[in-house]
Amino acid sequence: MSLKKLEVTYRPFDRVTRVPPGTTLFSAAHWIGLPIDSTCGGRGTCGKCKVQVLDGGLEVSSADRKELREAEIGSGWRLSCQSRVYQDTVCLVPELQRVPRAATMGVNRLVLLDPNVRKVYVELAEPSLEDQRGDVERLQDALTAEGFDMKAGLAALATLPGTLRGCGFKVTAVLGGDQLIAVEPGDTRDACYGVAFDVGTTTVVGTLMNLRTGMAEAVRSTLNGQAPFGADVISRISHAMAGSAALVELQAAVRQSMNGILGELYTEAGVAREQVYEAVVVGNATMLHLLLGIDPTPISMVPFTPAFHGPLDLEARDAGLEIHRNGRVQTLPLIGAYVGADIVSGLIATGLGREDRLRLFVDVGTNGEIVLGSSRRILATAAPAGPAFEGSQIACGMRATEGAIEGVTLSDRVELQVIGGDVRPRGICGSGLVDTVAQLRLCGLLDASGRMRSKDEAPEHPLSDRLITVDGVRAFLLAEDVYLSQRDVRELQFGKGSIASGIKVLMDELGVTPGEIEEVLLGGSFGSYLNPESARVIGLVPPVDVDRILSVGNTAGEGAKMTLLSFRERQVAFELPDQVEYVELSARADFNESFLAVLQFPELGDL
Amino acid sequence: MSLKKLEVTYRPFDRVTRVPPGTTLFSAAHWIGLPIDSTCGGRGTCGKCKVQVLDGGLEVSSADRKELREAEIGSGWRLSCQSRVYQDTVCLVPELQRVPRAATMGVNRLVLLDPNVRKVYVELAEPSLEDQRGDVERLQDALTAEGFDMKAGLAALATLPGTLRGCGFKVTAVLGGDQLIAVEPGDTRDACYGVAFDVGTTTVVGTLMNLRTGMAEAVRSTLNGQAPFGADVISRISHAMAGSAALVELQAAVRQSMNGILGELYTEAGVAREQVYEAVVVGNATMLHLLLGIDPTPISMVPFTPAFHGPLDLEARDAGLEIHRNGRVQTLPLIGAYVGADIVSGLIATGLGREDRLRLFVDVGTNGEIVLGSSRRILATAAPAGPAFEGSQIACGMRATEGAIEGVTLSDRVELQVIGGDVRPRGICGSGLVDTVAQLRLCGLLDASGRMRSKDEAPEHPLSDRLITVDGVRAFLLAEDVYLSQRDVRELQFGKGSIASGIKVLMDELGVTPGEIEEVLLGGSFGSYLNPESARVIGLVPPVDVDRILSVGNTAGEGAKMTLLSFRERQVAFELPDQVEYVELSARADFNESFLAVLQFPELGDL
Repeated sequence: MSLKKLEVTYRPFDRVTRVPPGTTLFSAAHWIGLPIDSTCGGRGTCGKCKVQVLDGGLEVSSADRKELREAEIGSGWRLSCQSRVYQDTVCLVPELQRVPRAATMGVNRLVLLDPNVRKVYVELAEPSLEDQRGDVERLQDALTAEGFDMKAGLAALATLPGTLRGCGFKVTAVLGGDQLIAVEPGDTRDACYGVAFDVGTTTVVGTLMNLRTGMAEAVRSTLNGQAPFGADVISRISHAMAGSAALVELQAAVRQSMNGILGELYTEAGVAREQVYEAVVVGNATMLHLLLGIDPTPISMVPFTPAFHGPLDLEARDAGLEIHRNGRVQTLPLIGAYVGADIVSGLIATGLGREDRLRLFVDVGTNGEIVLGSSRRILATAAPAGPAFEGSQIACGMRATEGAIEGVTLSDRVELQVIGGDVRPRGICGSGLVDTVAQLRLCGLLDASGRMRSKDEAPEHPLSDRLITVDGVRAFLLAEDVYLSQRDVRELQFGKGSIASGIKVLMDELGVTPGEIEEVLLGGSFGSYLNPESARVIGLVPPVDVDRILSVGNTAGEGAKMTLLSFRERQVAFELPDQVEYVELSARADFNESFLAVLQFPELGDL
Repeated sequence: MSLKKLEVTYRPFDRVTRVPPGTTLFSAAHWIGLPIDSTCGGRGTCGKCKVQVLDGGLEVSSADRKELREAEIGSGWRLSCQSRVYQDTVCLVPELQRVPRAATMGVNRLVLLDPNVRKVYVELAEPSLEDQRGDVERLQDALTAEGFDMKAGLAALATLPGTLRGCGFKVTAVLGGDQLIAVEPGDTRDACYGVAFDVGTTTVVGTLMNLRTGMAEAVRSTLNGQAPFGADVISRISHAMAGSAALVELQAAVRQSMNGILGELYTEAGVAREQVYEAVVVGNATMLHLLLGIDPTPISMVPFTPAFHGPLDLEARDAGLEIHRNGRVQTLPLIGAYVGADIVSGLIATGLGREDRLRLFVDVGTNGEIVLGSSRRILATAAPAGPAFEGSQIACGMRATEGAIEGVTLSDRVELQVIGGDVRPRGICGSGLVDTVAQLRLCGLLDASGRMRSKDEAPEHPLSDRLITVDGVRAFLLAEDVYLSQRDVRELQFGKGSIASGIKVLMDELGVTPGEIEEVLLGGSFGSYLNPESARVIGLVPPVDVDRILSVGNTAGEGAKMTLLSFRERQVAFELPDQVEYVELSARADFNESFLAVLQFPELGDL
């Protein structure tokens, strides 16, 4: 496919955008925040998104033939959701009867409210001897007339006769895609909810979203109940290898965490379980496998293959989630065994694949997931970073909880930022570790090789009293009983070196230099707390201007919310793995070479 | 659509057939027993059924574009399963690499073995660092290469990693349609079974079919466990109205009957439950509703609407059937609330809608289901017949079990045919009742109005001693303690009158006379035992030559087996309700008028 961008002009707004060939007129409008109406979610069945093409030839799709009159087609009208642009195009968007809601989410991403779950209120003709259609067919015909397809499973079907006859055949059909989830008496369109889950190895976050308004009703998080079985994915997989009982145990643990969150969300928001029709779940490959009870062993062994890459559209009962009993659960796809649905979700939140700008997205944890690219080409990889960023294997390391030093400034004195505010520092978490090392570099107490100076070597330094030895190893005293040791610096060097090396491999593969990177996005629960300047000083990220380094928060959770609210964002997520080139580092000699090269810290003059 | 038949010629066989417009070249060949190869079951994905169109323009389908080369399309090659005939056509069928198996089933119907369940043996490339596809995608790609689509549910997915790695990635995929049912280690294509169920109100019959050979491995039948809740559908529905517990009770009863049959079938055939991947279930509307736990109440009340008409493709676990745990259950569609999937199945078994000949199909029971038509037009209706044909409400009536008189010949003596052979007659079953009445008519002891002669009125008759009175009512003594009363004759008159009246309404609607009916097919468990001559004498069926009246056996069960063995027969069954015009008798004045007219027996001279 040609990479040349095409120009699309929307009248009467005179809004112009440039898009890759093959983009639909609907999507292109959507991306620039221009609302085009649709009730079918871009499936080409509702006929509401029609536009008149004034310039630029467009093929007539079969959906056009079905939804539009011959004369309309003749005068250039097309369903914008089916019309793909292969040349510069000018089209007229007719005055809209209803402007869809939209919200800004993720990293300045505009999301049109167009959820996969839709409620349709219908008043059915009552049966008569002249009209003996079955209840299912009666409902189906009414929904078809409104532009919706419908498939009914047994569960939704079983109660249909009673429901229809109990309310005079005036009902609200709840559809998840074309699957009938429920038929509710009367008009219940006001109550329509879904939940977005980010299942992290450490933390599970659930957000209850109002699918009518697009607003979050409540957010809850909890430790992943699998924590007792190991802190990272490899130890979880090791436990799972103990046999099917262990796999069931891990599955039950995370289900319990998620259902615990659901219970709290329902209470806080005053929403009934039966009003929550869908969950979008993201997480790394191992978390998704364990949640679904699928043996993750092959993820941990060469050649690192998950059981599935694709998105899964499941019944809530199969996934074990306590939403509506006929509800749906959607997982986002994986890019690779170590670049999971959480990263796909992050790409949705950042819109990385949609813009011309070259951007680098890094999710820092025990694995560093790295994505580099733009709408032209996207590369992704995962670099093993070890536990340092999570505060493990560090002498005074701890998780980012109360008492953890999360920020450090060194000048002629030591300024500490401690979680919980005015509490006694108990240890150092990942961001505090990065800050300390960066600050030691900046104030001259750590050289580029990572060697810490001793009190003897820097007697004049205002902080020389802080230079101590612990069990014969050099260390820097941050607070009473809390210090950073030379060995801790080495741990961090290993972790940042691995990630930096992964970044370098992708940059080389793409043939770009640091100066061409317009933005560095630090995501994930750790990245969000990382000081951009410190990340740059230790060489975790390439040497770009510090104002180009952004903490972008929990992008995995944001993307999950966006794909819950927008069917089109979900489609984009489904297609992402095909667009992203996965680079397997363990197969590459250049990874190990550059790893050794970047173990050192950057020279300060190079920054 | 034009009703004009089109001529299709198949070279090099020079076989010619005439089919309705819109028929595919594949189906038309199939119907005349000309085998065209296909592995995808006519879905247009395997590319094996291609033929060269020599004369008669055919549109190029999207499947053609996908499966055939440009040059092939240019020289007239088309996928025969996608090519619909809209003009006389001549095509060349290439020499076939494999001739599909076929069997004669039903009423002289040739069925090509092409089951919905297919086993595909694949040897997958093992994963490597250069090929990190997920297990699902790896399997999917291999199946796509063989011409099969595949969707994997969670259950089949969960064990995939272990299965693949346990057998060197050489596996057999079991597909039900495009749904992945199982992945089995090694080549298991030899073992592939399905079960056909005919769920009657009285009797449940299950046949275990070998889907590889098309042979029945075992047959078992049992009384429907719902019998204690009432003999007919109306009493079953009345019980269901008692509330959801009663509905669950009825559901459990029939499930138990079916699972009991399954257990016996497995034992008899030496087949494991996990080798049985699909069940096709037919039955009347009420039986299907109750099996699936769906409230059947509206079926019993004006305007008689079932919850669903369409075919249901279910998971075995939802239907509660103990076949493979991920197996599929397929129900055939309904034509109306009282013309159910058993009749659709009967139409498959008789091929009634496919032939030019005008035929009448009658399934006699407490309801008489009647279908009249040919490939030109098909009408169907149901007439309430009362319990007489089932042996109820008859003084000495009984079910067709041991000791029941099932056949009667009257001359100067009484010859009885008793079920069980040389046993003492205990009562009369339906066919015995019809025979007795017919024989009494023929030997002059019953007049056309249905009035039985008394001993006084026929003193010279060789059987005059048999003319007795019981409690002041006239009766004919068949055996010790077994007699037919005048009141029994009236019951039968009501039942046969209702069915005959339904037949008359359909004949009038179609504008045909008895002479134009080429065959009368008596189906269902009762019809099969009915003496055709007797049926004609009492006027149950129109006065056609007796050799045109055929007992066709358990057509419901035959059709279920056929749709289990042939995906194309199943497709035909799915489409039947759209082709059959349902005539609702309760809305028609002419039904009641003709009912009164046909209560009488035909004059013997008119036969």
